[in-house]
Amino acid sequence: MKSILFTLEDSPAKYKQIYERFKSLIEQGELRVNEQLPSIRQLAECLHVSRNTTLTAYEQLTAEGYINGKGRKGYFVNELEPQLFSRETPVIPPKPPQPTYTVDFKAGAVDQANFPLKAWRKLSNAVLTSNNAFHYGQPFGEICLREQIATYLLESRGVKTDPHAIIIGSSTQQMLIHLGQLLKKNFQSIIVEDPGFDGAREAFLFHQFALETLSVNENGADFSQLQTMKSQLIYVTPSHQSPIGVSMTIQERQKLIQWVNEQNGYIIEDDYDSEFRYTQRPFPALASIDATKVIYLGNFSKSFLPGIRLSYMALPKELLARYEQQFQHFESTASLLSQLTMAKFMEEGEWNRHIKRMRLVYKRKMQCLVSALQKQFNEHISIIGQQSGLYVLVKLYNNHSEEWFIKQAAHYGVKVYPTSLYFINNRPAEPLIKLGFSHLSCEEIILGVKLLKKAWL
Amino acid sequence: MKSILFTLEDSPAKYKQIYERFKSLIEQGELRVNEQLPSIRQLAECLHVSRNTTLTAYEQLTAEGYINGKGRKGYFVNELEPQLFSRETPVIPPKPPQPTYTVDFKAGAVDQANFPLKAWRKLSNAVLTSNNAFHYGQPFGEICLREQIATYLLESRGVKTDPHAIIIGSSTQQMLIHLGQLLKKNFQSIIVEDPGFDGAREAFLFHQFALETLSVNENGADFSQLQTMKSQLIYVTPSHQSPIGVSMTIQERQKLIQWVNEQNGYIIEDDYDSEFRYTQRPFPALASIDATKVIYLGNFSKSFLPGIRLSYMALPKELLARYEQQFQHFESTASLLSQLTMAKFMEEGEWNRHIKRMRLVYKRKMQCLVSALQKQFNEHISIIGQQSGLYVLVKLYNNHSEEWFIKQAAHYGVKVYPTSLYFINNRPAEPLIKLGFSHLSCEEIILGVKLLKKAWL
Repeated sequence: MKSILFTLEDSPAKYKQIYERFKSLIEQGELRVNEQLPSIRQLAECLHVSRNTTLTAYEQLTAEGYINGKGRKGYFVNELEPQLFSRETPVIPPKPPQPTYTVDFKAGAVDQANFPLKAWRKLSNAVLTSNNAFHYGQPFGEICLREQIATYLLESRGVKTDPHAIIIGSSTQQMLIHLGQLLKKNFQSIIVEDPGFDGAREAFLFHQFALETLSVNENGADFSQLQTMKSQLIYVTPSHQSPIGVSMTIQERQKLIQWVNEQNGYIIEDDYDSEFRYTQRPFPALASIDATKVIYLGNFSKSFLPGIRLSYMALPKELLARYEQQFQHFESTASLLSQLTMAKFMEEGEWNRHIKRMRLVYKRKMQCLVSALQKQFNEHISIIGQQSGLYVLVKLYNNHSEEWFIKQAAHYGVKVYPTSLYFINNRPAEPLIKLGFSHLSCEEIILGVKLLKKAWL
Repeated sequence: MKSILFTLEDSPAKYKQIYERFKSLIEQGELRVNEQLPSIRQLAECLHVSRNTTLTAYEQLTAEGYINGKGRKGYFVNELEPQLFSRETPVIPPKPPQPTYTVDFKAGAVDQANFPLKAWRKLSNAVLTSNNAFHYGQPFGEICLREQIATYLLESRGVKTDPHAIIIGSSTQQMLIHLGQLLKKNFQSIIVEDPGFDGAREAFLFHQFALETLSVNENGADFSQLQTMKSQLIYVTPSHQSPIGVSMTIQERQKLIQWVNEQNGYIIEDDYDSEFRYTQRPFPALASIDATKVIYLGNFSKSFLPGIRLSYMALPKELLARYEQQFQHFESTASLLSQLTMAKFMEEGEWNRHIKRMRLVYKRKMQCLVSALQKQFNEHISIIGQQSGLYVLVKLYNNHSEEWFIKQAAHYGVKVYPTSLYFINNRPAEPLIKLGFSHLSCEEIILGVKLLKKAWL
């Protein structure tokens, strides 16, 4: 037996120091296989610690397999592969620092000043003391929230659905990945809007769906295009086309419903921000006309808080049973706490009050942005999509590239956003720049537009 | 022009009643295509409302495409397909009511009495007033939380990783679905433990991976089985085998690391509840030995709250770049609010305090369960997995089926859980019953075990 000399520090716990020391000696080959360790008593005396301390260290080493105890004979080193212990720490280059902006016209945010902080806090604090918050949630979402959503969909979107046909998830893309898993068994391709939401396309490409494109412009889509297409699935944004901002008329909705019934396919209706229509009431959802072939997707990102990660879909009856079968062993991806809080928030009428309030708030901001743009740019600009949503697209007739507009704006401290990522084949002659306003005050909007004039004109 | 007679109620808003009435008349074919509507003035006078009210209703109908305004000529009905408006409400049979139990030995829950309610509330309320809570989060998770997790992994699990190599998600299964999408490009099959976590298998089957099984029993796995297998991927639970409860020794971990280096494959290490080891300190993670080929998975479900839906994985350097490339356009599925709150909770030392406290709480509950089982069942029972985790498996030698044990227990008001769903080929001679205890008090545990004695002996 080698004599082992080491001193103990005040912390960490002494048994831990002993354990670490022997582990390291064994890993480094200083102690060889079958070599005997000092006895519990010897080591305790030598290190001036209790026998309990040395015993705890040896038990840990035994449990992990470094040593073995042979009763009265003592403790012996087990065989190990020493070369494995060259631990590599991954070295990953740090991300470059992001520039700061005076005004950021980002679209993925919500107004903070009018967030119903008090009501939400009260309810979420209450949820944390309820019994049903401390276990795994239901795989398809909590029934209390599904019931509230069903009521909301009927009253506000005209969609009649059973609460059990509503599936809760964490994001539109996550739901599309699950949905795609089902649909790809019967369908190989899908029609998407061009331009259209790139995130949805990514989810379809995740499942190797072939994409056919339906061209959309400021007058909407020409649905006669569907006649030459092979797909029986279509993904659309009827209430507020993403990103162009047009809404489908009742005739266009009917054409689409007729088409899907003929095809025996499905329409995926993404109703992502239908709450915010300013010139009229929100249009009823496509699924309100006939939901037998419509998969309706909604979420709380635009209307409440993107960071809450709550989305939902209402499935047609024939898909529901298959979905339940396929995903019965999958845990929900949506926070149980957020689901329970949102259910209470809706039940107590806070949700409807919030939507009403925000519609006025965003209407005022939209007016502010549009009039600022008109004032500063006059006839040099076209504004697209001012009837609804939390952003507009602008088109400038001065023969510059999208990149130029973004760089110029950045030069003046304003962040604006590209739209080229939404386009597939149907590229516009002039670039379209996206300006989101939801999180900005009217003062910030006016300042931002003034700076854009300097940058662009 | 037809004369249209209807009366208005006090609510909803009068313009809405007018809109709904005309919409329904057009949909039902009572008003035909090109038929003229009363003028705004006529209708206002007739209904005793302001012209603004009738104008708003007509503008809504115009925007949705039901009617069109021809200037001074007036408003006319557009063409519609009347047959589409037979709206079907899905009728889905209600789920049967669930029986109630006196004691429920479920495993998917956590202790509520010792939840750090005050600290968590304080921090989550603060997050709701911070600027960074009102937009979309980072696709791979918030860097503040990734940094905290990296520190925790180094200190408590021995895993050295860069914060940028940590990806945040909402559940282990959700992360495995993303991971599988990457891995399936190079690998067609994966080795899983038998018995093993069914949820992980589901995620691998989602991507059509072929499964090879590694038999595990109370003595662990015989890794010589690997020599006859074709897969280069393996999914394991080294710290606390799910569901058998054994931990891999250092030799077994080394064998596995050696194997994966020879194969040039990957180990997926699911370290799902490693915090709770009672007889020794938690064993260092497999990834602490050599992380170049180990994908490390962790989550906050068992150690904090399953309903929070926060999981994470540490990726080897060579996979990280591919992951970032593949998923750069995917939104995070994990709540931004929960991420920001958890980062603060960890930063302030609350997390380490919580884990220490819960280890003692669960240790006491585990002792309580084990001694109650030993007292009531004596030599009739084998208890498996009492060293760690939030459940034990029990084996009774009385020749009954798993179904019998569950039914008998239910008859006495006790809910116990099957394990057969975890087994693939390696079925045990006697059924194993799973008893979770984390959410029960010692009194409830003792009562539950007494009732089980009546039920089973």
